[in-house]
Amino acid sequence: MQDQVNLGALLDAMRGNPPLVQCITNFVAMNIAANVMLAAGASPAMVHAEEEAGEFAAISGALTVNIGTLSPGWLAGMLAAVRSANHAGKPWVLDPVAHYATAFRRKAVAQLLELRPTIIRGNASEIIALTGGNSGGQGVDSRDPVDMAEDSARQLASRHGCVVAVTGATDFVTDGHKAQRVEGGSPLMPRITALGCSLTCLVGAFAATAPGNPFDATVAALAVFAVAGEQAGAAADGPGSFSWRFLDVLATLDAETLTAKARVVVA
Amino acid sequence: MQDQVNLGALLDAMRGNPPLVQCITNFVAMNIAANVMLAAGASPAMVHAEEEAGEFAAISGALTVNIGTLSPGWLAGMLAAVRSANHAGKPWVLDPVAHYATAFRRKAVAQLLELRPTIIRGNASEIIALTGGNSGGQGVDSRDPVDMAEDSARQLASRHGCVVAVTGATDFVTDGHKAQRVEGGSPLMPRITALGCSLTCLVGAFAATAPGNPFDATVAALAVFAVAGEQAGAAADGPGSFSWRFLDVLATLDAETLTAKARVVVA
Amino acid sequence: MQDQVNLGALLDAMRGNPPLVQCITNFVAMNIAANVMLAAGASPAMVHAEEEAGEFAAISGALTVNIGTLSPGWLAGMLAAVRSANHAGKPWVLDPVAHYATAFRRKAVAQLLELRPTIIRGNASEIIALTGGNSGGQGVDSRDPVDMAEDSARQLASRHGCVVAVTGATDFVTDGHKAQRVEGGSPLMPRITALGCSLTCLVGAFAATAPGNPFDATVAALAVFAVAGEQAGAAADGPGSFSWRFLDVLATLDAETLTAKARVVVA
Repeated sequence: MQDQVNLGALLDAMRGNPPLVQCITNFVAMNIAANVMLAAGASPAMVHAEEEAGEFAAISGALTVNIGTLSPGWLAGMLAAVRSANHAGKPWVLDPVAHYATAFRRKAVAQLLELRPTIIRGNASEIIALTGGNSGGQGVDSRDPVDMAEDSARQLASRHGCVVAVTGATDFVTDGHKAQRVEGGSPLMPRITALGCSLTCLVGAFAATAPGNPFDATVAALAVFAVAGEQAGAAADGPGSFSWRFLDVLATLDAETLTAKARVVVA
Repeated sequence: MQDQVNLGALLDAMRGNPPLVQCITNFVAMNIAANVMLAAGASPAMVHAEEEAGEFAAISGALTVNIGTLSPGWLAGMLAAVRSANHAGKPWVLDPVAHYATAFRRKAVAQLLELRPTIIRGNASEIIALTGGNSGGQGVDSRDPVDMAEDSARQLASRHGCVVAVTGATDFVTDGHKAQRVEGGSPLMPRITALGCSLTCLVGAFAATAPGNPFDATVAALAVFAVAGEQAGAAADGPGSFSWRFLDVLATLDAETLTAKARVVVA
Repeated sequence: MQDQVNLGALLDAMRGNPPLVQCITNFVAMNIAANVMLAAGASPAMVHAEEEAGEFAAISGALTVNIGTLSPGWLAGMLAAVRSANHAGKPWVLDPVAHYATAFRRKAVAQLLELRPTIIRGNASEIIALTGGNSGGQGVDSRDPVDMAEDSARQLASRHGCVVAVTGATDFVTDGHKAQRVEGGSPLMPRITALGCSLTCLVGAFAATAPGNPFDATVAALAVFAVAGEQAGAAADGPGSFSWRFLDVLATLDAETLTAKARVVVA
């Protein structure tokens, strides 16, 4: 039997000592991801150039790598940062945005996977395609339900010795052995760009707070998004008003509310 | 006599089969453009690197190219994407942001124009300058009224065999033969950055939906912006509240309202 | 005895002839900085490539340079723009984001400082570190109070013959001789990313309006932020609602309100 993750305690721990997280993310996500991190209580830094990415990773609590708007120069910075994080024993999170779409992306993700991410977070189409499955992804949007990706997630986690999170209407998290589902959120969330990318950064923040327990860290980050998303969605009139309400809720969400409202179940 | 564009039918058609649109746009516009596309019902993908831009253009329904924050690497990606779109018979839209400002920009736009855009969307200063006229543009802001650019737009459309849209207080669209004006919007719109760039992406979405009719596609995208902008502007207290209200309105705007509220007239 | 800066007159002068400001800033700040500039009444242009940055600086009223997401290509563009601004006698503002974090950043800032910025704006940790002091900065976030940076600011201003602004809960501005403090703002402001970067751009706008008086220009920009931030903060429920309210307030703030509400004191 699996223990429940102590979500509230993790949230308080993260905020009590705001982790510096190096976020190498895409141009679309940069601003909203930084705002999500600050609202939630973390300390993001967008540092990507090969000339400094490795040096910065060594002083960060965690690293997140997102290939959304990839180019060769950025890939070089990602690889330098990951090698440094690995050398320093810092957790790092891979977000393989639309990696199935082009040869350039597939090759980049293969290189990154060889460097053993601590956690992989993607949508169902991305996770299915990472195990060679036939995904229905179109561009950057998932066209597959999360439950179709559960087997792929377990395989991927076992193969690479990492935690895998598939996010969507109901999220699925596994380390290859145990697994949990996180319910909540809002149907508006896929209508706002880069929320998944922002969640990847927040996973990094919790991983920095609990480096010895990436499974719990991932569940906690997903639960924060699920509860805040549900509350923001209930008050929003559309994707525009969702976005700012989501940041307001993230900033005021407390440990007690998180623990009470989160719907995390063993899978 | 020109037929009226069936705006509502085009909106429903676009949403019924959300087109994947490759948007190569500037760093300022990335996030708001993606959010505008998602709110309106399209599927944007920001893919720019020369290593994959061509491959991605071939699987996209349309391509949009915006030179707002141009650099040589991005120009190479744009050219690769455009050549691929042309080869695959996909429509592409050019947004020649402040092309008159520097020699680098002028040369880049000349290269792009040679590749025969399906549609060009710009402000009055940009369109006037594209035909060699004396524009009053300062930086990226138009200083010329749209009606001063109508002759330039007709010339440009005839010369390049494309549709030209001049956007401003009242928009003007022409294919060199017929022309229509689209009224609406809000005086707040020029106070929010990158709305024009976002509109270029939405033009791409409609062009993907109606590849055989870029004139109607352009009018439809402009009408969506004009109606949504007018509604958002009526409720907004300033540029900040306009932005999120605009996304909310875009997401809820239906075909019936669009058809009823749009003010499109033959020019 | 120092004269009080005529804040309202400077705001009206800036809006009466909106200055074109070339903003070379980071990917996180691009959108919000442009929106802040447009809301306040300035005309921003994000032009960074080495191929055109110098040419554009010569036609701009002022230049701002921010190293938040630095890379070698961007540094080359910054240096080209700065040399051109200097040659044309245009003021330029340096924002040395987290320059203490890596060797790459330290070297870049040393190069930029040699080119004699008109104004430097940073947080306390950044300004302390620029004079070789022991700063507590973590990543891009200041961990030092502004008053700990006042001596550093005076030294820095004297050494480089420039104006130095340290921004935080209470801002401090000095040219090495005189100094003023600007009170106001909101505790929410550090919870929103890139507001400091946006302020740097607005300092550039006022510097373009009053090129002969960078001290007054800096105080005016800081006062605008302090008053608008205080008003937006009073109405906001969190960082999300602060952001759009801040833009609304910036757009409607008039000279009379600015003069009445600003709390600027001689230091």
